[in-house]
Amino acid sequence: MEHTNIDNKIQLVSHMGDDLSVVNAARKSYDKCSSEMSQRDIDLLKYMWNNKHTSPFEFVEFTFLVKCPIPIAKQWMRHRTWSYNEISRRYTDSNIEYYVPDPFRKQSEDNKQASIDEPALDDQLYHPTYWKYRRAIKSCFEAYDALLKDGVAKEQARFVLPQAVYTEFYAKTDLSNLLKFIRLRIGTDAQWEMQQYAKQLLEIIEPIVPHTVRLFKEEMNIE
Amino acid sequence: MEHTNIDNKIQLVSHMGDDLSVVNAARKSYDKCSSEMSQRDIDLLKYMWNNKHTSPFEFVEFTFLVKCPIPIAKQWMRHRTWSYNEISRRYTDSNIEYYVPDPFRKQSEDNKQASIDEPALDDQLYHPTYWKYRRAIKSCFEAYDALLKDGVAKEQARFVLPQAVYTEFYAKTDLSNLLKFIRLRIGTDAQWEMQQYAKQLLEIIEPIVPHTVRLFKEEMNIE
Amino acid sequence: MEHTNIDNKIQLVSHMGDDLSVVNAARKSYDKCSSEMSQRDIDLLKYMWNNKHTSPFEFVEFTFLVKCPIPIAKQWMRHRTWSYNEISRRYTDSNIEYYVPDPFRKQSEDNKQASIDEPALDDQLYHPTYWKYRRAIKSCFEAYDALLKDGVAKEQARFVLPQAVYTEFYAKTDLSNLLKFIRLRIGTDAQWEMQQYAKQLLEIIEPIVPHTVRLFKEEMNIE
Amino acid sequence: MEHTNIDNKIQLVSHMGDDLSVVNAARKSYDKCSSEMSQRDIDLLKYMWNNKHTSPFEFVEFTFLVKCPIPIAKQWMRHRTWSYNEISRRYTDSNIEYYVPDPFRKQSEDNKQASIDEPALDDQLYHPTYWKYRRAIKSCFEAYDALLKDGVAKEQARFVLPQAVYTEFYAKTDLSNLLKFIRLRIGTDAQWEMQQYAKQLLEIIEPIVPHTVRLFKEEMNIE
Repeated sequence: MEHTNIDNKIQLVSHMGDDLSVVNAARKSYDKCSSEMSQRDIDLLKYMWNNKHTSPFEFVEFTFLVKCPIPIAKQWMRHRTWSYNEISRRYTDSNIEYYVPDPFRKQSEDNKQASIDEPALDDQLYHPTYWKYRRAIKSCFEAYDALLKDGVAKEQARFVLPQAVYTEFYAKTDLSNLLKFIRLRIGTDAQWEMQQYAKQLLEIIEPIVPHTVRLFKEEMNIE
Repeated sequence: MEHTNIDNKIQLVSHMGDDLSVVNAARKSYDKCSSEMSQRDIDLLKYMWNNKHTSPFEFVEFTFLVKCPIPIAKQWMRHRTWSYNEISRRYTDSNIEYYVPDPFRKQSEDNKQASIDEPALDDQLYHPTYWKYRRAIKSCFEAYDALLKDGVAKEQARFVLPQAVYTEFYAKTDLSNLLKFIRLRIGTDAQWEMQQYAKQLLEIIEPIVPHTVRLFKEEMNIE
Repeated sequence: MEHTNIDNKIQLVSHMGDDLSVVNAARKSYDKCSSEMSQRDIDLLKYMWNNKHTSPFEFVEFTFLVKCPIPIAKQWMRHRTWSYNEISRRYTDSNIEYYVPDPFRKQSEDNKQASIDEPALDDQLYHPTYWKYRRAIKSCFEAYDALLKDGVAKEQARFVLPQAVYTEFYAKTDLSNLLKFIRLRIGTDAQWEMQQYAKQLLEIIEPIVPHTVRLFKEEMNIE
Repeated sequence: MEHTNIDNKIQLVSHMGDDLSVVNAARKSYDKCSSEMSQRDIDLLKYMWNNKHTSPFEFVEFTFLVKCPIPIAKQWMRHRTWSYNEISRRYTDSNIEYYVPDPFRKQSEDNKQASIDEPALDDQLYHPTYWKYRRAIKSCFEAYDALLKDGVAKEQARFVLPQAVYTEFYAKTDLSNLLKFIRLRIGTDAQWEMQQYAKQLLEIIEPIVPHTVRLFKEEMNIE
C-alpha cells in the first residue's frame, strides 16, 4: 500500500501525568487530589523552565505508536533515552506499506543538508523520473516476493526492500526528553518529513501539558 | 560497488585500558606501572565475573569503525549504551556500496525468526530469482541517480535506495556493554549476518582483554 | 525525628500501564479497549519473560516517593535508568529525620559484605554503645543548628549531619528496569535495609502487574 | 585524617583520544597517523561546536579517580552518563578521611541556594561553633569504632559517620558529557566545593583537548 503523505502516523497510546506532576515532582510532594494548576504552580513551572531545572519534567511519560519510513525511524532511534519496540521484517512479510513523496522537494543549493519548499519535478505525476521511482519500488517488491517464494529467509530477502517502506514501533519517553527531541527535529535543518513528525508530537501532547508546551513554544518562537 | 561477503567490515579505531584496568577500577587503585596480570589479579577478575560485578568492566573502552547493511545498523543502534556517529545519506550521494548475500539462506521452518545454513536457491548465480534481486537493486540506483539529476533533495531521493546499501559509522562502548551486545548477537537466534559481526568484535578485542574474553567464552561455551 | 524502622517509606505516586500494556507493546497493537488478560496474552507474556525479550516490559512506568537514609539513597541512585528528583539540604534545614537500627545486626564472619540476622548489642536499649551512637547523632544536630545560627551556609553546615538522616526523592522507572533493580537488591548480599525497600517495591507493584510479578517470583524462588 | 581543603583530589587515570579524535569521528575516517590538527581540522571542530553537533565529542573518553565528601559524590553521581565504581563502607572501615571547610562560608541572603565568599565564623579556629563541629565529628568516629568493636555490621555502623567523610571512586565519561557536567557545576549556583572540582576537571583535560577547551571557555566566558 502506497502513502503519499505522512500525516496522522502517530497515535498516543497512553501517558502518565501532566503539568501538575512536574510541579509535584519539584516539590517532592504527594498530592493526588489537586487537579488544577494554581497561579503558584504555574509560576514554579515557569521558574524551573527558565532555569533549566529539567529533572521534574522527566516525571511525565508518553507512549506513542509510530509509523514512518526507515530513514526517519533510524534518525528517531538515535535518541537513546527512549524505549522502543519495533516490528521486525525478520518475522513479518505482509502488509508492507511505503512512502512516495508528493511532491519531491528540491535540493537546497546553499545548504547541502536541507530540501527546499519547491517541487523538484514539473508535473510530477507525468514526469518520467517519478515513474522510474515507482517502477524501481515495484521491482523491489516483486523480487522480495520471488525470494520468499523460493524459500529465502525473510531476514535476507528484506535487503531488496526499498528504504521507503514503513516500519512501525512503540516509542516511550518522558516530557523532558521528548521536548529535547522536538527542539532538535522541528527546525528547518531537520529532514522535512522529520519536521512533520515533530510537529505532530507537539500537537498531540499540547492538551495534556498545555502550560509546558506554551513555555516551549515561546522559547522556540512557534505560534 | 557490490559485496557478497561481510568479512572484515569492522576496524578497531582505538581503545582505552585492558584486563588490568578492570582490576584497578575494582580496587579503586591508581597504578599506572604494573603492566602484567598477576595471579591475584586474575583471581579477582574471575571473582567479579562470576559474581556479575559488572561496573569495573565499564572502565575499558573501544571505538570501532563499522560498515554494514541498513537492517544490521538498525539492530546495532538499538543498543542505547553506545555512542554513534553515522554517515548521512542526506549529505552524501557517492560511493554507495551494497550487500548481496552469497548464498541466500533458507528460511527455517520450525522457528520463524532464523535462517538455516542451507542455500535457498539452487545454483544461485544462474537462478532467475537472483537476477530479479540484482535487477531490482540496479533499477533502484538508476532511479536514485535520475532523481538527483532532476534536482530532488538527497534526503528524499534516498527513499528509493534498497536496504542492502552499506552505511558506515563510528561506534564506541565499554567492555561490559560490548560483551552484553556480543552475548545477545552471537547466538543462533540473531540474524546470520549479525552473528558474523558479533564474532568479529570478539576476535578484535581478544588480544586486548584476553583474560576477560576467556571467561566470556567459557560462559558461552565458545571454543 | 527518630525512626527505628524503615517500613512504609515508599509511596506509589502514579503509574502507566499494566500486564496488558506489555503484551500490546510486544504486538505493536493499539488497543485501548481490552482490559483483561486472555490466556493468549498470558502465554505471550510468559514467552517474552522466558526468552528475555525485555523491551516490551519497558512500556509500564512507575513513579515512587521514597524516604530512606543517605547510604541507601546512594546505592539506589547508582541505577542510571531511573529519573530522580531529590530534596536538597542546600535549601532545606527543617524536618530532618534519621534512622536508628533496631536492633543493630551482627557483622557476618565469613562474608565481609553482609550483616547477619542476629542482634549485635545485648539488650540494645541499655547498651552503652547504643547511647554513644545516639549521643553522637545528637551532638551532630546541635553542631548543625549552631552553624546555621552563626550564618554558615546550609550547603556546608550539612557536612556535620550523620549519614543516618533520611533523604526524600521522587523516583521513576519502567517495569523492566525496576525488576532488574529488585533482582539485584532483594538478595542476601544486599544491605539488609535495602532488601526491605526492594521487598516493599515488589509488594507495591504486585496488584498492578500480577502476571509479571508471578513470573519474577517463580524465577527468584520467592513465595 | 582531616582535610581543610579539597585541592588535588582528582587524578586522571587514563584517557582515549584528543581533539583530532573528534574530527576523525565527525569524518568517519580511519586515520591513525595524523597527530597534529590542521587549520581545516580546527575549523571543522569549531563548526561542530557552534552548531551543537555533540556526537563526535563523545569519542574522547576520560577515567578519573576522585576523592570527595559524600554530598559532593551524591551530586556527581546524579549524572547518569558516567560509569562509576566506588569504595564501599559496607566492606571498608579503615583510613577514613573527612573534610572540614576552612573557612565556613556565609549563607547568601538573596539566593537561598548558594554560599557567599565571606567567612561565617569570626576567627574560625577560636570560634566555639567550630569546635562544636569538630567535637561532633569526633564523637561520631568514637561511636563508629565502638559499634565495630561490639560486632555491629559495618553496613549499619556507618549510619553514624558524618557526611563530611570522603568517599573515593573511579569515574569515567566522554568529552561531550564531561563538558555538560562542568558547564552545570562550574557556575556560582553550584555548591562552592563542587565548583572547585569542576575547575580541576577542566584544568586536567586542557592539555589533552586544548582546542575544545578553548571553545568551551569562550562560550562560558572563562579566562
